[in-house]
Amino acid sequence: MKLPGRKGVRSLFHFLHVSMTVPLRMMKKGSDPFPFLLLVFFCSFYGTANAECLVRGTGDLGIVIERASGSVQVVDTTAKTSLFRVEGLGDLSHASAVFSRDARYAYVFGRDGGLSKIDLLCGSLVKRVVQAGNSIGGAISQDGTLVAVSNYTPGGVKVFDAQTLAQVADLPAADEAGSLSKVVGLVDAPGQRFVYTLYDAGEIRSVDMHDPDKPQMQRFRDIGRLPYDALITPDGRYYIAGLFGEDGLAMLDLWQPQQGVRRILDNYGKGEEKLPVYKMPHLEGWAIAGRQAFLPAVGRHEVLVVDSDSWKEAGRIAVHGQPVFVVAQPDGRRVWVNFAHPLNDTVQVIDTRSLQVIHTLRPGKGVLHMEFTPRGEAVWISVRDADTVQVYDTASFKLLAELPAEKPSGIFFTSRAHRTGL
Amino acid sequence: MKLPGRKGVRSLFHFLHVSMTVPLRMMKKGSDPFPFLLLVFFCSFYGTANAECLVRGTGDLGIVIERASGSVQVVDTTAKTSLFRVEGLGDLSHASAVFSRDARYAYVFGRDGGLSKIDLLCGSLVKRVVQAGNSIGGAISQDGTLVAVSNYTPGGVKVFDAQTLAQVADLPAADEAGSLSKVVGLVDAPGQRFVYTLYDAGEIRSVDMHDPDKPQMQRFRDIGRLPYDALITPDGRYYIAGLFGEDGLAMLDLWQPQQGVRRILDNYGKGEEKLPVYKMPHLEGWAIAGRQAFLPAVGRHEVLVVDSDSWKEAGRIAVHGQPVFVVAQPDGRRVWVNFAHPLNDTVQVIDTRSLQVIHTLRPGKGVLHMEFTPRGEAVWISVRDADTVQVYDTASFKLLAELPAEKPSGIFFTSRAHRTGL
Repeated sequence: MKLPGRKGVRSLFHFLHVSMTVPLRMMKKGSDPFPFLLLVFFCSFYGTANAECLVRGTGDLGIVIERASGSVQVVDTTAKTSLFRVEGLGDLSHASAVFSRDARYAYVFGRDGGLSKIDLLCGSLVKRVVQAGNSIGGAISQDGTLVAVSNYTPGGVKVFDAQTLAQVADLPAADEAGSLSKVVGLVDAPGQRFVYTLYDAGEIRSVDMHDPDKPQMQRFRDIGRLPYDALITPDGRYYIAGLFGEDGLAMLDLWQPQQGVRRILDNYGKGEEKLPVYKMPHLEGWAIAGRQAFLPAVGRHEVLVVDSDSWKEAGRIAVHGQPVFVVAQPDGRRVWVNFAHPLNDTVQVIDTRSLQVIHTLRPGKGVLHMEFTPRGEAVWISVRDADTVQVYDTASFKLLAELPAEKPSGIFFTSRAHRTGL
Repeated sequence: MKLPGRKGVRSLFHFLHVSMTVPLRMMKKGSDPFPFLLLVFFCSFYGTANAECLVRGTGDLGIVIERASGSVQVVDTTAKTSLFRVEGLGDLSHASAVFSRDARYAYVFGRDGGLSKIDLLCGSLVKRVVQAGNSIGGAISQDGTLVAVSNYTPGGVKVFDAQTLAQVADLPAADEAGSLSKVVGLVDAPGQRFVYTLYDAGEIRSVDMHDPDKPQMQRFRDIGRLPYDALITPDGRYYIAGLFGEDGLAMLDLWQPQQGVRRILDNYGKGEEKLPVYKMPHLEGWAIAGRQAFLPAVGRHEVLVVDSDSWKEAGRIAVHGQPVFVVAQPDGRRVWVNFAHPLNDTVQVIDTRSLQVIHTLRPGKGVLHMEFTPRGEAVWISVRDADTVQVYDTASFKLLAELPAEKPSGIFFTSRAHRTGL
């Protein structure tokens, strides 16, 4: 814990002043001061315990993952400052996070199977459990009571009580032959569901967790070879998995699960195995803006435009490098794109109406992630090799603030608490 | 202030226990206890001052307007309980509210021109200004620094600093001849804009408030006769005003303001002046779910379905009464409808894919408002004549909780802080 809030410090000083001076002045000469001082000590302790935790709203908080040092910073997006650093979170390469529905706690999913619960108001690590050997992300249930983690080793999904981190369900990912499968693309969905994909088994599972003792599972087999990641549309209706072993994507309509999984965008990834793919693009990196989806082409310096009614390709936009994240401003008017190594010093901005690149920024080497403030007036960009997080005005592209951070990667704001599938 | 939080009470008791017993036990016989007791008093006071304000996240808070008593309740949507009642807010008939970007403060717009700032963590009225004789709602700017209020008497819009409620701009609503106009349909829009409509002058204005000393105003004249209300689509792109004096609606594309205002839905309201209209439906009561908009028909027992690409009517759904609010679940899968007097004891639920009414609830007489939890697992419904707020599970339609409230009307949750146009 660092950087106690100003209010806490002021309260503490005020308290010490009152508690030290008034009674000491009133004490009769010759009486023993020890009990007073002890009482002062207790009072101070009480004051300090409170002072460490901030009395403030949590709607404008967020965290920045510091991947190399296994720490996160708690940030304030109004003041554009850092409030706390929380350490001891283990291996945070590829880490992601979700938030409790009161927006007080962050749940951080580490690569080493660690699930850490962080108190944003106190800047403290509330609890950490190492729940598997190797994990790849998680989700929080619609009602905020359950946190699920998807695992590579030994595979499967484990579900925890969001308050205590006690395990409440284990969902192994065995196929018909009993082989365990890596799990990818875990998301929450409306109806208290978790939806995820079995990499080895080529299967999507949708689990209703209304009763954690009796998870109700729907299975969708033979969706295609080696699904490597997935996303859910912002309304929680369509779940789409990318396939490493073949072209196209597997889509499930969660409003009509009885129709099963269908293949969309047959050309997606076609023939791209012949190109060097520096980084398999994240599917969470899709942007859905109005009726259009914008997604990274695999291995090409292009962003694909897809009609989200027909799920057919509607255009391609030439960009600076191989896109990694393609993220829509909250108003859907522009999408922002970062790129794979070695062109990862650049961010480009595309107008969603004209489908033109309208601006290029060069924040520095190692642009890893971008997060918009909830109503989109600013974007926070992590620049790993410069050890900095930069904040830009989305209208003027002006640099508004820069915060030091140790090899920052993911940036996550508490407004995600109120969204599906994030 | 009422109902101190459990944590505060517990801390206070713990503190009193430590501060009373330990020093008294250690005090030597014969020494004067008065200074101890004084110190205990000071410490208790300190403890109480802190205990009144909660240390907790604000993502799951909200307010319920109690229109008859000029008060609001602060509620917790996780525990489904009331935390505080805040009184002295004046005339709250037709009141609405917006939230600060940190989700700590609510700004309540009263009918009597009062603008009240409420601290949700302390259950206190921070400040109240009576800024006009008669007002009709407000908005908070994209960056959260400015609160705007639209007025009937003397008309126009006033803009306040969100922290201090000091007035920072006055935007009178005079037409060419100098006549002042009532202002309706005030919303925030991306680009630090406020957009609003002049009732008497038939004009839409869009004001860029990046520099509050020099508001940049765009004016759109001759939009139609007597615009009575307006809405902005959730992405902040389309601003649509309803017309009392003629049929159809006036629409402005804020991405292409140079194209001016165009008329849509020519049939909207056509011939309805011959029907008794018990309550002019709110335009904020539109639901936009995917590519469809659902809106109350004027004077008829119907919900209209509109294609939000072409803005042409795509269907009509027969319902129980004259719809007032037509509200989409956050996942867009269903819309919920309440009705005008005398059929205001009922709520109906429409499936947005089949366009069928799939459920009817009867919460009681005087159903005035419905608010979904941010991820849609529950809906809160105010039932004025039963002096109650009811909480329903949106999947099972089961009544989950019921909270007493004095003539409740509007219900507003803090997740609105992160949305445009709410």
